[in-house]
Amino acid sequence: MFPVTVEAIAGFCGGTIEGDEARAIKGVNALEDASEEELSFVASRRAAAQAASSRAGCLLVAADFDNRSRRTVVRVQDPRAAFAHVISVLYPKRKPAPGIHPTAVIGNDARIGNGCSIAANVTLGERTIVGANSVIAPGCVIGDDVTIGEGCLLYANVTVYDRVRIGSRVILHAGSIIGADGFGFAFTGEQYEKFPQIGTIDIGDDVEVGANTCIDRAALGATRIGEGTKLDNMVHIAHNCQIGRHVVIAAQTGFSGGVTVGDYAVVGGQVGVGDKARIEPRSVVGSGAGILTSKIVRAGEPVWGTPARPLHEYLKQLAALTKMPAMLEQLKELRSRVEELEKI
Amino acid sequence: MFPVTVEAIAGFCGGTIEGDEARAIKGVNALEDASEEELSFVASRRAAAQAASSRAGCLLVAADFDNRSRRTVVRVQDPRAAFAHVISVLYPKRKPAPGIHPTAVIGNDARIGNGCSIAANVTLGERTIVGANSVIAPGCVIGDDVTIGEGCLLYANVTVYDRVRIGSRVILHAGSIIGADGFGFAFTGEQYEKFPQIGTIDIGDDVEVGANTCIDRAALGATRIGEGTKLDNMVHIAHNCQIGRHVVIAAQTGFSGGVTVGDYAVVGGQVGVGDKARIEPRSVVGSGAGILTSKIVRAGEPVWGTPARPLHEYLKQLAALTKMPAMLEQLKELRSRVEELEKI
Amino acid sequence: MFPVTVEAIAGFCGGTIEGDEARAIKGVNALEDASEEELSFVASRRAAAQAASSRAGCLLVAADFDNRSRRTVVRVQDPRAAFAHVISVLYPKRKPAPGIHPTAVIGNDARIGNGCSIAANVTLGERTIVGANSVIAPGCVIGDDVTIGEGCLLYANVTVYDRVRIGSRVILHAGSIIGADGFGFAFTGEQYEKFPQIGTIDIGDDVEVGANTCIDRAALGATRIGEGTKLDNMVHIAHNCQIGRHVVIAAQTGFSGGVTVGDYAVVGGQVGVGDKARIEPRSVVGSGAGILTSKIVRAGEPVWGTPARPLHEYLKQLAALTKMPAMLEQLKELRSRVEELEKI
Repeated sequence: MFPVTVEAIAGFCGGTIEGDEARAIKGVNALEDASEEELSFVASRRAAAQAASSRAGCLLVAADFDNRSRRTVVRVQDPRAAFAHVISVLYPKRKPAPGIHPTAVIGNDARIGNGCSIAANVTLGERTIVGANSVIAPGCVIGDDVTIGEGCLLYANVTVYDRVRIGSRVILHAGSIIGADGFGFAFTGEQYEKFPQIGTIDIGDDVEVGANTCIDRAALGATRIGEGTKLDNMVHIAHNCQIGRHVVIAAQTGFSGGVTVGDYAVVGGQVGVGDKARIEPRSVVGSGAGILTSKIVRAGEPVWGTPARPLHEYLKQLAALTKMPAMLEQLKELRSRVEELEKI
Repeated sequence: MFPVTVEAIAGFCGGTIEGDEARAIKGVNALEDASEEELSFVASRRAAAQAASSRAGCLLVAADFDNRSRRTVVRVQDPRAAFAHVISVLYPKRKPAPGIHPTAVIGNDARIGNGCSIAANVTLGERTIVGANSVIAPGCVIGDDVTIGEGCLLYANVTVYDRVRIGSRVILHAGSIIGADGFGFAFTGEQYEKFPQIGTIDIGDDVEVGANTCIDRAALGATRIGEGTKLDNMVHIAHNCQIGRHVVIAAQTGFSGGVTVGDYAVVGGQVGVGDKARIEPRSVVGSGAGILTSKIVRAGEPVWGTPARPLHEYLKQLAALTKMPAMLEQLKELRSRVEELEKI
Repeated sequence: MFPVTVEAIAGFCGGTIEGDEARAIKGVNALEDASEEELSFVASRRAAAQAASSRAGCLLVAADFDNRSRRTVVRVQDPRAAFAHVISVLYPKRKPAPGIHPTAVIGNDARIGNGCSIAANVTLGERTIVGANSVIAPGCVIGDDVTIGEGCLLYANVTVYDRVRIGSRVILHAGSIIGADGFGFAFTGEQYEKFPQIGTIDIGDDVEVGANTCIDRAALGATRIGEGTKLDNMVHIAHNCQIGRHVVIAAQTGFSGGVTVGDYAVVGGQVGVGDKARIEPRSVVGSGAGILTSKIVRAGEPVWGTPARPLHEYLKQLAALTKMPAMLEQLKELRSRVEELEKI
């Protein structure tokens, strides 16, 4: 693909050039690492300040970028998005050749669409359907009666249990587990009896699931992940959670049973959410927050801390906490002064 | 299996019918989702309130359920347990046919009991023993000199290292790792030397291990998980932990080396437990709590927070914390008043 | 190997014997579990106190160990290290026989060094290089253009994505995922567009990676893990992190994108680290701490809590917090006393 001219790059992302349109670009890189033959981008005020010292041969910049040093730039509306787009053109994802590897084990009545690649040592269950152009990497184990949509990408060693539905263009990273039993037991006074987990999972289109993330099937009904939602690595979604559309959930966050998360919510990493809590659409939950059972998180202001509370309250309390040791001293001192006054 | 009559359902769980014993039931569902042809159950005061608006064709209810609307119910001692039992009758778990898949790789001197199902691409090590009627799903890798009891169920892509002992009727969910080395190193001043982890693991009967959960082998001796204990997803059990019988541990909780957990303890999700801490029998540890190294947690009152303390103390402190910013103001004001008084 | 004499043991670790040099030792064990025929060690004051009641047939002890009860001991400089060394001699790690199992699937132009063992159901990608004497256990999936050094040990079901570089003598425990996409998306106002993750990973020599740990590839450039660094189970290393040499990171800790960790830092379990934070060389971060985005953690004093602060500050604040409920009372009482005084 490389080298490409600055002119070609501007063409890929619909930008306007200032400077040397014929310059040859041989790769892309971060602002601080880019060489004279590499493309980079400026998407924040901080990056704009760093740009002065960057050696990048060409920069994707926003309309308001101050180009006083007259370097070669391409002006675009959203430099980060444009950069992502240019990468997707210049580094096209290699797709494995279609076909079913001879070591793959395909169950009876399974149906595999056109253009699919089913790699070595994959196991596909009975009556399972894989939509056209999907890729299933080595070592994946897909159960019976599973439906996988078109254009999906399952990385290596993914496990999908029986009777799960997965939409189209879904990406499941390596080691993710879709459909294990929810953690449901009834205590008899002497031991725990398993509460059968006969529900299923419904994953919408364009969802991405991180490495080693676990989504449990519902006890009854379905655990749902809405269209366009992105889960990072090692996220835990318990039985019967209802995660909305275009939600972002960072790594190592865990949701207990029956939690609802509204569309466009953003949840940080290592957050813990109690049973049946409800996170409303467009809410923001800070990393490490703990949300109590049945709690409702409202949009408008990020929440943080354990138990989670509005950010400004939490910050005020944290600030107060740092003053506590001094305050203890002051209180003591004030007390003896009052005692003195009382003696009078 | 379906439809079944209400009479048959009452028979499965030994309940007594009020209403239409001949009604045909075609499935089971949660109270809020059940249709006129589905069975549900009422196991809490909250559920009892919701029952009024449920369309469920039949409800399993407790002796004290107020059936003033004269719907069809089956009275039982424990509605949740009865519902679980009815499900296990009506949705019997499909068991794969016994046999060893031709792609499975079985080590020398391995012994596989009657009725076992060893699926595609399973690797069984040398001298490993699998008890009768156990099921090992595709992609599992079982090391050398492992003992697995009868009626176990290992889901896909489970890894069991060498020389581990697993009891009977144990369920290991997909991706769980049993027997990796404990995290033990000696610092030489320049680098970390591995402390050999030559111990083993002993998992009791009727244990269930969640997806992607990791149980490390002991440095010396054995890491132990007692009979009937249930671990949720992505739990970390470090070397030499001694987890008792009928313990419940929720998702993403981690135990450092040498922790002891007594029988019937209940540990929430995302709890962190320091080296050699001791959680006494029937203790309750709230989600997200942090238990310090060598700390002893006693039964009687749940503990919460970091460092973990009795719940009522923690709640008092949290309440006080919310008052801190106001308190700072009050203290300041009081001080100036005292100053005024002192001037007199 | 067993039995061995105390004399032989002293020879292995260069120690000096007090007592019965001809005594036969048949195994090793922890101080509290060792029998008269087993070796143990004393490496702390606490262990020295326990030693009196240990039945161990021989103890490895330091120069200052008070052997008033005249038991058979071997004096060494560092008893723990010596014990580890003796174990490595007496329990040599069984290495699988070299060779490529017939079920392994080897990509075109892959190069496998002498003495390697490639187990059942392994998939090796195209142009991938495995150095001499490396062991790859069953079910591992190694992508294209990967480089693995000499003497590595990949346990079962490890996944390595394309274009990752792994040094020599690296241990990857089961289920670890090396090279999944970083969690990078650009929000368009309506949905999240994937930011292509075209970078790679560079893992130094002598690194050990715990079970189910995930290391994400860089967006651009490389995620780096320095020589000799040890990661416990279920650690999350996001894209573009730069982890130094001889760093220790305990289980379930997570690093957001672009975090830097200096050489010889020690990070506890369940720590959360925000984007682009910098943990300086030889810093110590307590378990469960939360480090904010772009924060710099300095060496010298351990940090703890969320947001992480120097340990002595945190402890003072915790102590103050426990006094808060009483303080609220005192403040109230003091106020009414001041009111009384003001009335005069």
